[in-house]
Amino acid sequence: MYSLKEQEAIIARAICNLKFVKEPAGLYEPLEYMMSIGGKRLRPRLCLATYNLYSDNIGDNIISPALALEIFHNFTLLHDDIMDRADTRRGQLTVCKKWNDNVAILSGDVMCILAYKYLAACPAEKQPQVLELFTRMGAEVCEGQQYDMEFETQPIVTGDEYINMIGLKTAALLACSAKMGAVIAGAPADQAQALYDFGWQIGLAFQVSDDYLDTFGDQHIFGKKIGGDILAGKKTWLLVEALKRAGGESRQRLGAIMAMDNGRAGEKIAAMQQMYIELGVKKDAVKTIEDYHEKAMSCISGNGFTPEQLAILREFSESLIHRED
Amino acid sequence: MYSLKEQEAIIARAICNLKFVKEPAGLYEPLEYMMSIGGKRLRPRLCLATYNLYSDNIGDNIISPALALEIFHNFTLLHDDIMDRADTRRGQLTVCKKWNDNVAILSGDVMCILAYKYLAACPAEKQPQVLELFTRMGAEVCEGQQYDMEFETQPIVTGDEYINMIGLKTAALLACSAKMGAVIAGAPADQAQALYDFGWQIGLAFQVSDDYLDTFGDQHIFGKKIGGDILAGKKTWLLVEALKRAGGESRQRLGAIMAMDNGRAGEKIAAMQQMYIELGVKKDAVKTIEDYHEKAMSCISGNGFTPEQLAILREFSESLIHRED
Repeated sequence: MYSLKEQEAIIARAICNLKFVKEPAGLYEPLEYMMSIGGKRLRPRLCLATYNLYSDNIGDNIISPALALEIFHNFTLLHDDIMDRADTRRGQLTVCKKWNDNVAILSGDVMCILAYKYLAACPAEKQPQVLELFTRMGAEVCEGQQYDMEFETQPIVTGDEYINMIGLKTAALLACSAKMGAVIAGAPADQAQALYDFGWQIGLAFQVSDDYLDTFGDQHIFGKKIGGDILAGKKTWLLVEALKRAGGESRQRLGAIMAMDNGRAGEKIAAMQQMYIELGVKKDAVKTIEDYHEKAMSCISGNGFTPEQLAILREFSESLIHRED
Repeated sequence: MYSLKEQEAIIARAICNLKFVKEPAGLYEPLEYMMSIGGKRLRPRLCLATYNLYSDNIGDNIISPALALEIFHNFTLLHDDIMDRADTRRGQLTVCKKWNDNVAILSGDVMCILAYKYLAACPAEKQPQVLELFTRMGAEVCEGQQYDMEFETQPIVTGDEYINMIGLKTAALLACSAKMGAVIAGAPADQAQALYDFGWQIGLAFQVSDDYLDTFGDQHIFGKKIGGDILAGKKTWLLVEALKRAGGESRQRLGAIMAMDNGRAGEKIAAMQQMYIELGVKKDAVKTIEDYHEKAMSCISGNGFTPEQLAILREFSESLIHRED
């Protein structure tokens, strides 16, 4: 078995070696750009990690489908950035800003299709199962994005609705990644399913920690301005919880903070951070992330995984919840 | 073998029975809408026709992949309508107009993914070949759309560039449809390839006739206003040819017509129609469509097709070139 660091290097190299450049350049350059501006490569790394639980034989049969997950993820980001009117992504201009919306739509489309091309390099006998897994995930990610957009204009979002949304938008792709590696390696069906459930739970942990870092992270490490979600009024785990907990006077204060003009950005962010602390939301976010991590681990216990396999999966999950970027 | 009329009825029924409605409705309603507002269903009909050359056993194994072609086609139309800022399609409001751009982007995305879901219902042993064929086509369609957009601001488009563009944007999908039916039916490889080439040629014929009908069709039969391409200054087969042929005085007149204000729409359209007639472009468009039809037929001659098979394919191709809508 390779270490997670070694696996990360394998994925990083494979992404470096990706070659999209072909005609028409106007269509393919934005893809190269999008894939080159970084990211944690979490999904292909998870896919490779679960494959490597069963097989050390790492070739195009697994690298290519792992890249399909990253290409698909970047396709969704590309289109999300149009819908969110985002100017920057990972500290760089978004495709819709650097080029324009039409370029972002069409380059995103071809990226979605190319994800299937890379997926198709998996062993032929696994293809029906892999294709079904991937396609179900793809629809779920779109469903999650739709709910996320609908939340913007929805006055009340319950905790269950929020968890359902991030499940579809974020966790489904991590679950798919974890299961896909196992399926391609020929894992027993119950272990592949356990890894799917494991991936789903770490996906939830990942999204809640993403919400947490956007408000309480270290800007230099997190890589984007802290408080962006607060200024956008985004229905994050923190805000959904705060709206549930606040009553009476604190409810009024919360409403007043949300209504504050973004011209007073620093003041607004500080007030909301204070509110989250007072309501115990900050503390409970950390606990919730930890809880999802524990749930993830319980999904894979009792399925006949070896201690060595469990250790790698625990290390992967912990790297997510203790991340700062 | 079923008649083309019978095949058309099978496809029409299958499309009627398509059920996308699920949660969230905001994501899936535009799909239902898009699939319900009609169209000639040419691609699934061609796919079923080539399948039926070899097999009368028509079940989900072929119906579902045939529908994948129509779903994919509608996905591209949905996104094209955003890029072209189109308000109507088939006499109805476009999705981006009836809802908004974000809805059209995301509903289009899920439609592309669902196309793969329907594709996956083909027999497992055919899946690698079908997936590769479909995915290559998908990338080609995006490439064609990119060239089409680039042509808008490109002063000169050569005849070869135009044919390359419509090959990718239109013919690739018809070629894929024709080959896919044959592949799923288990046709000999050389016949499947001949059907691909046949589909490509009828795709070119189809697009040139589309350009022709937009300028010289009967508005009541064609279903949209005549002259739309002229007013949009679109680089159609007719305009590309006219720009090539016009010299001296006629070149100046052509430039003057193109520069005319769209406030004088009727006058502008009539002047351009007259120009196309004078330059022999109208007559040669009809001849070119006929030529592609003949080329299509020559692609399948000498490949061991029976007279009955050839007759059905000829009937299909002729229905395209003699169409009025």
